[in-house]
Amino acid sequence: MEFIFSEKVKELQAQVTLFMNERIYPSESVYREQLYAGTDRWSAVPPIIEELKREAKEQGLWNLFLPDERYGAGLTNFEYAPLCEIMGRSAIAPEVFNCNAPDTGNMEVLAKYGSEEQKQKWLLPLLEGRIRSAFAMTEPDVASSDATNIRSSIRREGHHYILNGRKWWTSGAGDPRCKVFIFMGKSNPDGPRHEQQSMILVPADAEGITVERMLPVFGYDDAPHGHAEITFRDVRVPAENMIWGEGKGFAIAQGRLGPGRIHHCMRLIGAAERALGLMCRRAAERETFGRKLSDHGVVLQWIADSRIEIEQARLLTLKAAHLMDTVGNKEAKAEIAMIKVVAPNVAAKVIDRTIQAFGGAGVSEDVPLAAMYAGARSLRIADGPDEVHSQQVGRMEMKKYMEKAGLSK
Amino acid sequence: MEFIFSEKVKELQAQVTLFMNERIYPSESVYREQLYAGTDRWSAVPPIIEELKREAKEQGLWNLFLPDERYGAGLTNFEYAPLCEIMGRSAIAPEVFNCNAPDTGNMEVLAKYGSEEQKQKWLLPLLEGRIRSAFAMTEPDVASSDATNIRSSIRREGHHYILNGRKWWTSGAGDPRCKVFIFMGKSNPDGPRHEQQSMILVPADAEGITVERMLPVFGYDDAPHGHAEITFRDVRVPAENMIWGEGKGFAIAQGRLGPGRIHHCMRLIGAAERALGLMCRRAAERETFGRKLSDHGVVLQWIADSRIEIEQARLLTLKAAHLMDTVGNKEAKAEIAMIKVVAPNVAAKVIDRTIQAFGGAGVSEDVPLAAMYAGARSLRIADGPDEVHSQQVGRMEMKKYMEKAGLSK
Amino acid sequence: MEFIFSEKVKELQAQVTLFMNERIYPSESVYREQLYAGTDRWSAVPPIIEELKREAKEQGLWNLFLPDERYGAGLTNFEYAPLCEIMGRSAIAPEVFNCNAPDTGNMEVLAKYGSEEQKQKWLLPLLEGRIRSAFAMTEPDVASSDATNIRSSIRREGHHYILNGRKWWTSGAGDPRCKVFIFMGKSNPDGPRHEQQSMILVPADAEGITVERMLPVFGYDDAPHGHAEITFRDVRVPAENMIWGEGKGFAIAQGRLGPGRIHHCMRLIGAAERALGLMCRRAAERETFGRKLSDHGVVLQWIADSRIEIEQARLLTLKAAHLMDTVGNKEAKAEIAMIKVVAPNVAAKVIDRTIQAFGGAGVSEDVPLAAMYAGARSLRIADGPDEVHSQQVGRMEMKKYMEKAGLSK
Amino acid sequence: MEFIFSEKVKELQAQVTLFMNERIYPSESVYREQLYAGTDRWSAVPPIIEELKREAKEQGLWNLFLPDERYGAGLTNFEYAPLCEIMGRSAIAPEVFNCNAPDTGNMEVLAKYGSEEQKQKWLLPLLEGRIRSAFAMTEPDVASSDATNIRSSIRREGHHYILNGRKWWTSGAGDPRCKVFIFMGKSNPDGPRHEQQSMILVPADAEGITVERMLPVFGYDDAPHGHAEITFRDVRVPAENMIWGEGKGFAIAQGRLGPGRIHHCMRLIGAAERALGLMCRRAAERETFGRKLSDHGVVLQWIADSRIEIEQARLLTLKAAHLMDTVGNKEAKAEIAMIKVVAPNVAAKVIDRTIQAFGGAGVSEDVPLAAMYAGARSLRIADGPDEVHSQQVGRMEMKKYMEKAGLSK
Repeated sequence: MEFIFSEKVKELQAQVTLFMNERIYPSESVYREQLYAGTDRWSAVPPIIEELKREAKEQGLWNLFLPDERYGAGLTNFEYAPLCEIMGRSAIAPEVFNCNAPDTGNMEVLAKYGSEEQKQKWLLPLLEGRIRSAFAMTEPDVASSDATNIRSSIRREGHHYILNGRKWWTSGAGDPRCKVFIFMGKSNPDGPRHEQQSMILVPADAEGITVERMLPVFGYDDAPHGHAEITFRDVRVPAENMIWGEGKGFAIAQGRLGPGRIHHCMRLIGAAERALGLMCRRAAERETFGRKLSDHGVVLQWIADSRIEIEQARLLTLKAAHLMDTVGNKEAKAEIAMIKVVAPNVAAKVIDRTIQAFGGAGVSEDVPLAAMYAGARSLRIADGPDEVHSQQVGRMEMKKYMEKAGLSK
Repeated sequence: MEFIFSEKVKELQAQVTLFMNERIYPSESVYREQLYAGTDRWSAVPPIIEELKREAKEQGLWNLFLPDERYGAGLTNFEYAPLCEIMGRSAIAPEVFNCNAPDTGNMEVLAKYGSEEQKQKWLLPLLEGRIRSAFAMTEPDVASSDATNIRSSIRREGHHYILNGRKWWTSGAGDPRCKVFIFMGKSNPDGPRHEQQSMILVPADAEGITVERMLPVFGYDDAPHGHAEITFRDVRVPAENMIWGEGKGFAIAQGRLGPGRIHHCMRLIGAAERALGLMCRRAAERETFGRKLSDHGVVLQWIADSRIEIEQARLLTLKAAHLMDTVGNKEAKAEIAMIKVVAPNVAAKVIDRTIQAFGGAGVSEDVPLAAMYAGARSLRIADGPDEVHSQQVGRMEMKKYMEKAGLSK
Repeated sequence: MEFIFSEKVKELQAQVTLFMNERIYPSESVYREQLYAGTDRWSAVPPIIEELKREAKEQGLWNLFLPDERYGAGLTNFEYAPLCEIMGRSAIAPEVFNCNAPDTGNMEVLAKYGSEEQKQKWLLPLLEGRIRSAFAMTEPDVASSDATNIRSSIRREGHHYILNGRKWWTSGAGDPRCKVFIFMGKSNPDGPRHEQQSMILVPADAEGITVERMLPVFGYDDAPHGHAEITFRDVRVPAENMIWGEGKGFAIAQGRLGPGRIHHCMRLIGAAERALGLMCRRAAERETFGRKLSDHGVVLQWIADSRIEIEQARLLTLKAAHLMDTVGNKEAKAEIAMIKVVAPNVAAKVIDRTIQAFGGAGVSEDVPLAAMYAGARSLRIADGPDEVHSQQVGRMEMKKYMEKAGLSK
Repeated sequence: MEFIFSEKVKELQAQVTLFMNERIYPSESVYREQLYAGTDRWSAVPPIIEELKREAKEQGLWNLFLPDERYGAGLTNFEYAPLCEIMGRSAIAPEVFNCNAPDTGNMEVLAKYGSEEQKQKWLLPLLEGRIRSAFAMTEPDVASSDATNIRSSIRREGHHYILNGRKWWTSGAGDPRCKVFIFMGKSNPDGPRHEQQSMILVPADAEGITVERMLPVFGYDDAPHGHAEITFRDVRVPAENMIWGEGKGFAIAQGRLGPGRIHHCMRLIGAAERALGLMCRRAAERETFGRKLSDHGVVLQWIADSRIEIEQARLLTLKAAHLMDTVGNKEAKAEIAMIKVVAPNVAAKVIDRTIQAFGGAGVSEDVPLAAMYAGARSLRIADGPDEVHSQQVGRMEMKKYMEKAGLSK
């Protein structure tokens, strides 16, 4: 495990940090104003975003997430981690660098498993940031943390597939620029358990697609991005939209979730760092009972606990990233599961303490804390709830023990 | 300490429970629909509210909070506690029984300290539920948990007072029926520390009042009730609007906060109970990994922890209420501070576990959990943050010890 | 639920408190000195104990635990609770009042289920404090929290029973005055699951009994009381030693464990109170970084948390005691399970904080904290580990929910 | 930061592990038997120790802790960390490799600051494992976490120094082979605050030294090593015993504590790993309610939490070690403070869960858990209590913030 960042990465860190300081943070309020200026927050993306994207692209701070050199920056997970963390400090930053979920995951899937035609049609515009996409996997009726539970159907009919099902938490579906979904469903119900599902590309304007509603997260609807509940009723797509091949859905999901989870963790650590910085600022500025908050022992304890938790979470994230790079996502399974539990919990705790330090302002929009909390809290559920990951970590530990002890279960 | 509820109370419990089951719960979705049906959620209160109020009033389930028999139900804190708890299970319930904050506190202040004229003009319409009110105390620039920090000014000028200052978290100010504020400010800046502030009645439509914005709590703006940031610029009110007398502001605040805090705690316990009920429902219905959630050890642990925490919090609330009734708010100071720390934390924890049990649905509006969480979390700040109460409990304990040990500090 | 203590109880509280202050606390060091003065801490009980017993008995502070008026004080659980709590503040106190485990439980069993002859022979000397006893139930090889797992055998042979098995954690077996065991074993292996076990009286000097060793708890062996591991090899006892009847073992265990558990909880709350008092003393006396510990915010937070946790644990204990008195041990099952989880955990936490406040002294014998911690920690295991009780509480809550919802499992 | 261990280190890891498996673990019970076989556990060290030392020395597994190549293995902190961790799995291991506290710290002090004569007389026999030593710094009357509080006096008198004072927690003073103390005291009470103390070598048999008693830790006296309370009354030592020079005591203490603390942390992580291994063993073997413990969700959760906490603590320890090696102990101050908080808490938590998994056996001596717990718990106090380190971490974080924000305090 190598924890020194290379010169290349250090330079990128400096560049991204500079961009954050000079362009992103000052634009957060602009974004907000533009968002609320229109009549409908869902109809258009605040123009500042496209402006910032242009600048980031010009500076080469673009598609840093993509390990495939043909299409992206060609960075390893370990190299991308410290950059992704910095982007995670602002809710508007990831997209500016074309590094936001779920587009990143979708681009990876296309880069890895897409046909040439699929790449031309969907990957290139995504890489250029001209369109956006969504990932229609999670379903309201089943525990979707186990992808084999997915029930929506994909039925072959001549040169087409017919899609049916109800999806929710399809994030990004609200974006007016969202042009394509990756849809997961059961195409081969009689196949072996891990080969029943497929993933297929569906144009966002296909007939039979109804966005039923946008789901809020602790009162935030995240417009115009949004989290949609969608019905697919007899949606017909050409057979060549199938990704990789029938029955490959589970395999693709596995490949997609590793990086997706760890990117979330990196961003969460960035969010926690921002919160800790805000806590220090508040502690330096606010006075109660005749003393600066920073002179109250309890507040210093919060700051110390937060620093200690962040430090550890970051190291574990880096270790997981390093393992993914060196021994592969499968071998890094335990570490990915661990960090998927740790990062959202640490972020939520640090943000919660910062909210408390801010008092009433903390739960309002005067600081980005409440929204950050909602995001961190949701990530204790999204991509598999804490408990599923913990049980898995526990079982892997038991398995390791049993093997070492020469026992069989 | 007497923990058996009287027959009278048991009957009221049954009545309120019945009303909740038959009228309140089924109306929650109606409220939501009506709220979103109009063009502007701030312009009108959903009609279902007035309808339900009429029914509750007819059944005598009205003003149960008010210990003063001339104006209210004449129940003690201990008697009101179990009823208030039941009302706390639904966000729309308290107002239906005319038992919602901040009107309850304002009514108590008027009943206790108001002049006959003030009572006629403001208390009676409030008691009848014809108007609503707000409490303009908290200020953005000072730690308002210590009322002596309040800086807004109340200056005498002939037969009037001139009010200036900026307030925030003035809850209920958004309600179109809100007709009056109780405003706290410094009238006697040179008086003894606890006699510098006064409380004064201000008609909501007085010149010089500007509602700057409505503050969200997490992503909830709680329209049409709302939490306002308001500037008072040279607002002129008749001298007879002064409550009790100049310099009595701190004393009134002290008297107001005891019951106010404990009512919040009772409602929070009700909220926690509702969450626990929902957790059981989810555990009975949802299946993961081939087993009902209720067959997963970790989920049973959540249920047990929640039951245990709620049980204890309720008993401590009842003890505090009992002490307030028997030895007075001042002697019950430690217990009020304790429960003010315990109840929001327990509620937040129980609700958080329930959210986790619900997965994605938990953070959305499909269940009332995320909104309940936002409320409980805010109450770790409102009416004094946890830390202020804890430090106070710690100091009272030390004082008790020093006295017992015959030591002086 | 009635939480006011009667005059009788208040008077006893005052008497016991006085006795603690004047006789018990000053005798703790005497006890220690006497214990270490001899050549062998196992051979004799420090004489101060019998001296104090005499005094307590003279003052009528004797057998307060026993609800049966014929034999004891005739107090209810609710009445005994505040007295038991006070006794729990000192490790040497309970025996002085003839209220120590496991003798209390054994006396209750004999009072309730013993034959006249058994009472004459064993109960009376126990009640008079002339002999001591032990309870041989727990076995090393099975999860003894479920009494139906007990495997030792009790075989009838003419007018005798033959006992075989290995027991451990037989507390009190080290006491030179220990004259009798209540032994639990399987007498009817083919009977219904809850009627296979019996309890039988075994003279401590019966042939075939070997005390293998004394088990330490952390580094404490609790000499001369001790926790023994014992083998019973073909131990022959007269048939009339059987308690109540063959197959009644499980029923007796159930009846015994309720009061036993709640007495432990009461004593633990007393221990926690003593620790909190010591924490305040230390905070008042010790200075670090130029300030009294009591002026450090973090220490005040510990004090507050401890007070809040103790307050709640006590109320829940009293509620459980009250329910046992009014609706019976069976109906109070959930509350007993809850408090059995809460009390040891609260005590351990409060004691742990106090240890931390004392620094190095805290883990030594200069203060009774480390020993108290060992005791509290063990009670998270003894009489059923936390998890067994929690799962039971969770399941009872689910059952209540299912019934209310009209569902069957 | 480089987290790949070199080939040299990997080889040593393998060697130490093999030695642990083949020699140390099987000798633990031998050690115990020998310890209890004699008439007095304080009079002699169990012979197995010297035997194992001989073997370890022969295999070159000796003095691995000492970075100074002239005297020891010449490993960096980062290289020693994984080895020290392995040794930490058994209480008897560190001495076998001549890597036990406080001798390691004393040897480092002598190697770094000792005169040639001091090295000949004391360092060499220590390096060869022929004698043992103790460190007499902590005093009962002052908060010794701040070394400037130390009050014992060192007074010059001609060619001698006269020492007076009371020390406690002088670990290792009980060992019959302990021949020398490093004594800290105030030699220059009028000097600048950090130059008032000195460290001086004192032969263990010097006149005026009285070992008052051996302090237990949760009932464990750790004989024959022991933790002594000692009075020094007019103890006269030659002037050349002064280490480095008068007034250098604080500087030496600072240099000594960094490595000392991090060695403790490494060993604690080893202890936690051993506990986790035992938890898995128990989970694989024990059955309750018809299922293996490892099939209970709550137990899997414990295992997962433990793995996750250990993983993070180890990474933070390695980071701190790496920083000590590369930027120095002073620059690594924050990380050392962090890990000094994290490691004992993580170890205590993991061990506590394992105790719970073992039930009654867990608090006894049948498994090494209770003793390990006592050790880990004490290290939340020794070398500075958690709170002192946390407040320091908090203040360093605030300072960093203030500098970055261009603010001065």
